[in-house]
Amino acid sequence: MLVASLRRSGSFLRQPSSLSLSLKTMRPLTLDSLNQQLQTVQYAVRGELAIKAETYRDQLKSGGHNLPFDKVISSNIGNPQQKGLDQPPITFTRQVAALTEWPALAELAPGVFPADVIARAKELQEEIGSIGAYSHSQGVPFIRKSVARFIEARDAHPASPDDIFLTAGASAGVSLLINMLITAPTDGVLIPIPQYPLYTATLAQHHGRPIPYNLDETSGWSTDPESIEAALTKAKAEGTTPKALVIINPGNPTGALLNSSTMEELVRLCARHSLVLLADEVYQNNLHDAKNHPFTSFKKVVRDLEKAGLQDKVPLVSFHSISKGVSGECGRRGGYFELTNVSTEVRALVYKLVSVGLCPPLGGQIGVDSMVRPPKEGDPSYPLWKSETDAIHAALASRTILMAQRLNALPGVSCVQSPGALYLFPRIALSARAIAAAKEAGKEPDALYALAMLDATGICVVPGSGFGQKEGEWHYRLTCLCPGVEEYVGKLERFHLGWVEKYGSE
Amino acid sequence: MLVASLRRSGSFLRQPSSLSLSLKTMRPLTLDSLNQQLQTVQYAVRGELAIKAETYRDQLKSGGHNLPFDKVISSNIGNPQQKGLDQPPITFTRQVAALTEWPALAELAPGVFPADVIARAKELQEEIGSIGAYSHSQGVPFIRKSVARFIEARDAHPASPDDIFLTAGASAGVSLLINMLITAPTDGVLIPIPQYPLYTATLAQHHGRPIPYNLDETSGWSTDPESIEAALTKAKAEGTTPKALVIINPGNPTGALLNSSTMEELVRLCARHSLVLLADEVYQNNLHDAKNHPFTSFKKVVRDLEKAGLQDKVPLVSFHSISKGVSGECGRRGGYFELTNVSTEVRALVYKLVSVGLCPPLGGQIGVDSMVRPPKEGDPSYPLWKSETDAIHAALASRTILMAQRLNALPGVSCVQSPGALYLFPRIALSARAIAAAKEAGKEPDALYALAMLDATGICVVPGSGFGQKEGEWHYRLTCLCPGVEEYVGKLERFHLGWVEKYGSE
Repeated sequence: MLVASLRRSGSFLRQPSSLSLSLKTMRPLTLDSLNQQLQTVQYAVRGELAIKAETYRDQLKSGGHNLPFDKVISSNIGNPQQKGLDQPPITFTRQVAALTEWPALAELAPGVFPADVIARAKELQEEIGSIGAYSHSQGVPFIRKSVARFIEARDAHPASPDDIFLTAGASAGVSLLINMLITAPTDGVLIPIPQYPLYTATLAQHHGRPIPYNLDETSGWSTDPESIEAALTKAKAEGTTPKALVIINPGNPTGALLNSSTMEELVRLCARHSLVLLADEVYQNNLHDAKNHPFTSFKKVVRDLEKAGLQDKVPLVSFHSISKGVSGECGRRGGYFELTNVSTEVRALVYKLVSVGLCPPLGGQIGVDSMVRPPKEGDPSYPLWKSETDAIHAALASRTILMAQRLNALPGVSCVQSPGALYLFPRIALSARAIAAAKEAGKEPDALYALAMLDATGICVVPGSGFGQKEGEWHYRLTCLCPGVEEYVGKLERFHLGWVEKYGSE
Repeated sequence: MLVASLRRSGSFLRQPSSLSLSLKTMRPLTLDSLNQQLQTVQYAVRGELAIKAETYRDQLKSGGHNLPFDKVISSNIGNPQQKGLDQPPITFTRQVAALTEWPALAELAPGVFPADVIARAKELQEEIGSIGAYSHSQGVPFIRKSVARFIEARDAHPASPDDIFLTAGASAGVSLLINMLITAPTDGVLIPIPQYPLYTATLAQHHGRPIPYNLDETSGWSTDPESIEAALTKAKAEGTTPKALVIINPGNPTGALLNSSTMEELVRLCARHSLVLLADEVYQNNLHDAKNHPFTSFKKVVRDLEKAGLQDKVPLVSFHSISKGVSGECGRRGGYFELTNVSTEVRALVYKLVSVGLCPPLGGQIGVDSMVRPPKEGDPSYPLWKSETDAIHAALASRTILMAQRLNALPGVSCVQSPGALYLFPRIALSARAIAAAKEAGKEPDALYALAMLDATGICVVPGSGFGQKEGEWHYRLTCLCPGVEEYVGKLERFHLGWVEKYGSE
């Protein structure tokens, strides 16, 4: 208003433009002047609790604190190799990585590297050249071929390197696809509740609407196509245009695994409603009971259905990553997505968009190669690789079972014993007193619980409100990655009992 | 229309929602159904020419071709370590990287690694833990401290690790900042013409407007604050709200270097117009004549001006990268940006947004550490580091001079001899006949020239139209990274003379 009246007075005609003064009165980089949509982004996995955990870690490091714990355990994030968890990296992966970093090592340190590692590094180097060079924007063609062969072996259906895009972890690919799919603020994407908050965060970033559908905790966090139909009906009634269906399988935070018949129904649902299927399959190798609960990819289901006569070509984007599984190489930032039933024109657009970011990190790309082409029986590196990966699978499975049992034995806690992924998502009953205390603190009740847990134990988890949950229900997500599981579970138990003593259990 | 009339007829009441049918009639993943804004993205550096160059490379590899060249030289992109250019990586950088990949090597290969490399890798490992773990989203705090000390030594002004964000190359940071700054489709960002197309591509992606200002070729591609004022006036008249000023220094594609007095004027201009200054300084260590043409950072200029009494706190974001300089480690994807005069609230928003992507690649972060903390005089690795980096600087400088001289000697070609960066941006006179031929082929005239060059020589450059240029002028950008410069320039000369013979020079 002030500017407008000044402008009318004509008192600063020598300014190149009157608008420049109106701009000058506001600071150019305040929250007000920035993209408001981005300010709605929430990402609880690295939110308030994780930041507080960092300050505790700093206090422990600098000494002179009076914290009631001597270490912080970051159970808020599936980060197997972090300090304190220390899941060892796969030796084969790191040997290949070290040799591609400094190829001269093969000769400078004779006998140190197994022959298959030397051969692998040499093969990669011949294809790639220096790993300090940009690769093809879509990823090194040779590594994409390896990925295609891995997919073919898994699914018994053809896969083409042209349809594979290597990425800096799965997140980068998800963000790109959602950015492409959202054409208007009324466009939406179906996401499970609870969900990994990457999806809501990315939708907020790209001005899209989440269309939540509930998973069923009473049947082991199963996915019910009926609840997706209901969510679609509601969304359309609200003026939302559904563009895609996100399925996380194995589930995050739930750890649930889909069976083939549900998957078939979901593919048919996508066909019926013309939805793109976004299949987040980054935990496909984290199976605690693979015999009874195997993993089936959506690629396989889509192709099987087509073989069986399904006319619709359901577009599918499947995401995988080196951050999870037995690899656990989060820091390398490696992963890929595969396009199925996607036209060459759309693929060319994807290529153009990824090319603006030049290429995924080469260290991550080489990590993908190691993941999809591990040592084979008979290779010099096989026995060590086998014992390392067996140990990781076994530790994760036994910890998950033990933790779920012990959590289920606590008053007011119930926990689905998940057959996959890295997490448990226990439900906690919070009393009216606890809810009132949370309200007074201006926090979600489960956030208050999680903060109290962090303060008391040094264990950092993520409140269920960060993933979404039914009204009036409370959960938290914790990883099953702790090394000393007895000590860890003991801390959780003592904290919970103290909480119940303070606030009651109903 | 068909759907609308069907809906009115009420003929499919049993559908759960009439909208589902309207969606069903369109394929869910066609170009039409995707974000239209993204389809306007142009990124010539990896566009038509680069894709054609790849197909030639494949043909050469598979044999049985009749191409008039035996190798493809990708001069379209500043990628020093790519096959065929083969700028060697800095040994120190790769030794540190190899040891952090597989720390056991220090003991398994005694005597192979210099003592300072072993100490550095150990220090990094103690701070980071495994490089297979996610780091702090903003980057490893210890490495950010190293970056802050590097900036302080360069500028003689304080720098804080809290203001530094490690990134996957500079591009990731630029994209984030532009996403934050654009709040409405009428917002714009001032970009130089010619510019590195990352800026127009990122603006297109985030629905913002480029506000072009011309660099002056006749005075060595200098930046004239008057021309920026003119661009601002024009933009405002057109209803565009200017949010930020992009300066690329040393220039890309121009190689020009700003002097301090121009930089001061530009900072004052940002203060006057309340603009955020985005300083792309990724070529700060690519100086061909550092004595006469030194680099000064915008951080230094901003702080110097404040010390001298400037009241306005101009917000500045400065970008740097390990992809260029003598490091040339493009494939690692490492870099950083520093925030200056940015509030803690805005910094917290930046943190939240980068945390959704989890963390920058650890290999890139460690590359940043090696770049900002190279071996010092007296360290065991210093002599080799010194000779390697001296050789890279010297080769780049001599090639740039020689190439500019030889290009300037060609009929219809004039080329500013750039004092910095990795490129030359020669201007080419194209005859009316050539322009007519281009029009017939549906191409920009300089794109036709560049395609003809690729077909004849295997040298891939980027047409000036990909960077922006004045109406009726034509250029191309080529890197000065070729190893056999005589052979390379010879090919360029022969091609150009052949072109002139075919199309004439006027």
